[in-house]
Amino acid sequence: MAHDPQVLAQIDAYIDQHLEQTFAELGRLCAIPSVAAQGTGIEPCANLVAELLRARGFATELIPTAGNPVVFAEASGTGSKTLLCYNHYDVQPAEPFDLWTSPPFEMARRDGKLFARGVADDKGELISRLAAIDAVRHVLGALPCNVKFAVEGEEEVSSVNLPPFVEQHAEKLAADACIWEFGSVDSEGTPIEYLGLRGICYVELSAETLSLDAHSGLGGSIFPNAAWRLVWALGTLKGPDGHVRIPGFYDNVLQPSERDMQLLAALPDRAAEMRETYGIKDFLYGLEGVELRREEVFVPTCTICGLTSGYQGPGSKTVLPAKASAKVDFRLVLNQTPAEIVAKLRAHLDAEGFSDVQVTLLGGGRPARTDPDHPFIQLVCETAREVYGRDPQIWPLIGGSGPNYLFSHYLGVPIATLGTGYPGSRAHAPDENLRIDDFIKGARHMARVLLGFGD
Amino acid sequence: MAHDPQVLAQIDAYIDQHLEQTFAELGRLCAIPSVAAQGTGIEPCANLVAELLRARGFATELIPTAGNPVVFAEASGTGSKTLLCYNHYDVQPAEPFDLWTSPPFEMARRDGKLFARGVADDKGELISRLAAIDAVRHVLGALPCNVKFAVEGEEEVSSVNLPPFVEQHAEKLAADACIWEFGSVDSEGTPIEYLGLRGICYVELSAETLSLDAHSGLGGSIFPNAAWRLVWALGTLKGPDGHVRIPGFYDNVLQPSERDMQLLAALPDRAAEMRETYGIKDFLYGLEGVELRREEVFVPTCTICGLTSGYQGPGSKTVLPAKASAKVDFRLVLNQTPAEIVAKLRAHLDAEGFSDVQVTLLGGGRPARTDPDHPFIQLVCETAREVYGRDPQIWPLIGGSGPNYLFSHYLGVPIATLGTGYPGSRAHAPDENLRIDDFIKGARHMARVLLGFGD
Repeated sequence: MAHDPQVLAQIDAYIDQHLEQTFAELGRLCAIPSVAAQGTGIEPCANLVAELLRARGFATELIPTAGNPVVFAEASGTGSKTLLCYNHYDVQPAEPFDLWTSPPFEMARRDGKLFARGVADDKGELISRLAAIDAVRHVLGALPCNVKFAVEGEEEVSSVNLPPFVEQHAEKLAADACIWEFGSVDSEGTPIEYLGLRGICYVELSAETLSLDAHSGLGGSIFPNAAWRLVWALGTLKGPDGHVRIPGFYDNVLQPSERDMQLLAALPDRAAEMRETYGIKDFLYGLEGVELRREEVFVPTCTICGLTSGYQGPGSKTVLPAKASAKVDFRLVLNQTPAEIVAKLRAHLDAEGFSDVQVTLLGGGRPARTDPDHPFIQLVCETAREVYGRDPQIWPLIGGSGPNYLFSHYLGVPIATLGTGYPGSRAHAPDENLRIDDFIKGARHMARVLLGFGD
Repeated sequence: MAHDPQVLAQIDAYIDQHLEQTFAELGRLCAIPSVAAQGTGIEPCANLVAELLRARGFATELIPTAGNPVVFAEASGTGSKTLLCYNHYDVQPAEPFDLWTSPPFEMARRDGKLFARGVADDKGELISRLAAIDAVRHVLGALPCNVKFAVEGEEEVSSVNLPPFVEQHAEKLAADACIWEFGSVDSEGTPIEYLGLRGICYVELSAETLSLDAHSGLGGSIFPNAAWRLVWALGTLKGPDGHVRIPGFYDNVLQPSERDMQLLAALPDRAAEMRETYGIKDFLYGLEGVELRREEVFVPTCTICGLTSGYQGPGSKTVLPAKASAKVDFRLVLNQTPAEIVAKLRAHLDAEGFSDVQVTLLGGGRPARTDPDHPFIQLVCETAREVYGRDPQIWPLIGGSGPNYLFSHYLGVPIATLGTGYPGSRAHAPDENLRIDDFIKGARHMARVLLGFGD
């Protein structure tokens, strides 16, 4: 439905005029190092999120889980429908600190951008939604629909405790549609609508062969070496051809449909942009065009995220390591499940002679997607056109993961993405940042979705 | 030659009576964290070693090298022959600090042992030799032979600058025999005579695939991953069968002679002791007995000493690493050389498709051995019998490395081991220690060799 241009202009002006107060709130959030993987700053950050929501009249509570609490909040609107916003207040570790231009937990403004760990993923998104709510309520006098927030604190550690939370609180969370935690434009400023996320199965592989490190001259040829055990075990998972060698790994993979391939074909080619951002000469296997995009999202992965063993300092230390471990991330597509992959991984290692290599599941979630033809997706796409002045790109699936399966499965809601991201945001890396212009557009887009979701 | 029992008794008594002063000197040495790999405490430690030698009337100088200086010292005796002692003042890194019972750089005495980083390897050895010199000189009034010391500061980083040093100063170092930096008893208290050391070729393998770490959800299937490149490259070096797959790696290996195998067969079985010390259930390939000992010393090795890449903290971080590296230690037997092995490694990686994996040589040295029938070896063995009351074990070669090749090649000296070590010393590991009783015996042994080396 089309809205009064004057109302929209007032809303946009309100957002602009209150930007400094908004950024002050964002700076407070980013100052808290709420690193879920390291257990720091969790309670203070959850409390601050609750404070910001209460200040806006939301009925707010911290709901405990087996891990970090979820901030749940709800506010009534004049309409009958309910919009649920899923966000997270935890962030990735900021290491390595020395690669940051300014300290990661002191938000800095440079060149039209804000820099901090979490400023893009996901604290800026959350604050942009609050800015939209403030503006809409100020101009209309009330929210046009009911709004709920579920802001969790373990998204960056694979939302380990969210499944029972969503299942147990399905009634409380009940909604007609869900806005996902993030959204983004591409390098041209075109908004992107992501219809689905891959699943994830994140494990640690570890080997322990001795009760203490040995002198490498003593045991090199006769002592079991944990680093070698780990390297050999990893080598059985995937070779340079990229094919995952775990038997049955691809059994449940749903190939992309014709519609999916059409959507992929309609997308612009981001290869040059990714080459520049990451200094890549050649993508794996010489892929390009639609085949590169297909591989990027519709093919499940096996990625080493970290390796650690023995001596890692400068120079040499002649030690034979007693322990070694690797972090390994599998990205899953429909209809793979984390439980299935862990079981197949364990069986594979056993069959390959690596029953000594331990597998610890550090986080898992199933993949999920929303129908591109759902009316809510159409609303989000139409309002994106208004704000950005361009047709949005529609991605049938993206490479990243999140707990969208839980929401689509337990709540039965369509899920749309909208937000403040861009390809240079360096999420998860040093110098994570948010462009101020994207922030403003993201808030305007959210405001229009709120209006459109009224009766 | 047999010595007057009364003289020997006086020497032994002198060593005993001065033990506290001796340990005070050792404590001062161990308080300096002279970690060559980390570049700490080098100058202060070299200066203290020089001070201790000057205090005993040695003409002492610090001879610069391209790296850490060598402390050279000489003192004349009444005889014509010259004995050269090779020692080192540098130590291994003390990490991980939290596994030490007491601080690594504060020498502690517990249960008849001294604990500190370097107390066994090699500061205790050096001080035991000074204690022997003091005792002999006090009782005889003079040294019975000329004595030289070459105390280097880079043994724990593969003596990278010693080759040109020994070559350039061969005249200054000239001697008739050399006492190596270490010696040891076995778990029964039987002294061990080591006739040779393996060579070493210590390299870093490193891969860099991106200009910055990426989100693992983005690039898992299309970005080159440095950790995978490293794991795959390492996997081509050696498989679980233990066979090094670098073409030509074994080409120059000199198989042990019949005499070598007889010497190995005469040695006691240390398997049970190693099992207990290192918590080993089974040695590799089910080896035992003389075959285990053969594998331990006469087979060249390829050992991963360290691995590092990406995220290594607690929990999970979904990152695709831009960089990865491994420390790899090859132990060489006659007639392999480090230059040969590095060249073969590079050619192998290139042939296997890993020209992107860099190889940096961090240290190398050739293997060398002394003839078991040399008169100097006989003197060291006879005097060992006097002090320890047992026939020494004679090892034709040991698994560790050191720059003995330089001394045997440039100086043409026979090299014998004697000293203060034992199998539980934890050299290179936390809680490195020295048994006081071994220290006393090592000093007595050194004193008898000095007497025997007189005219």
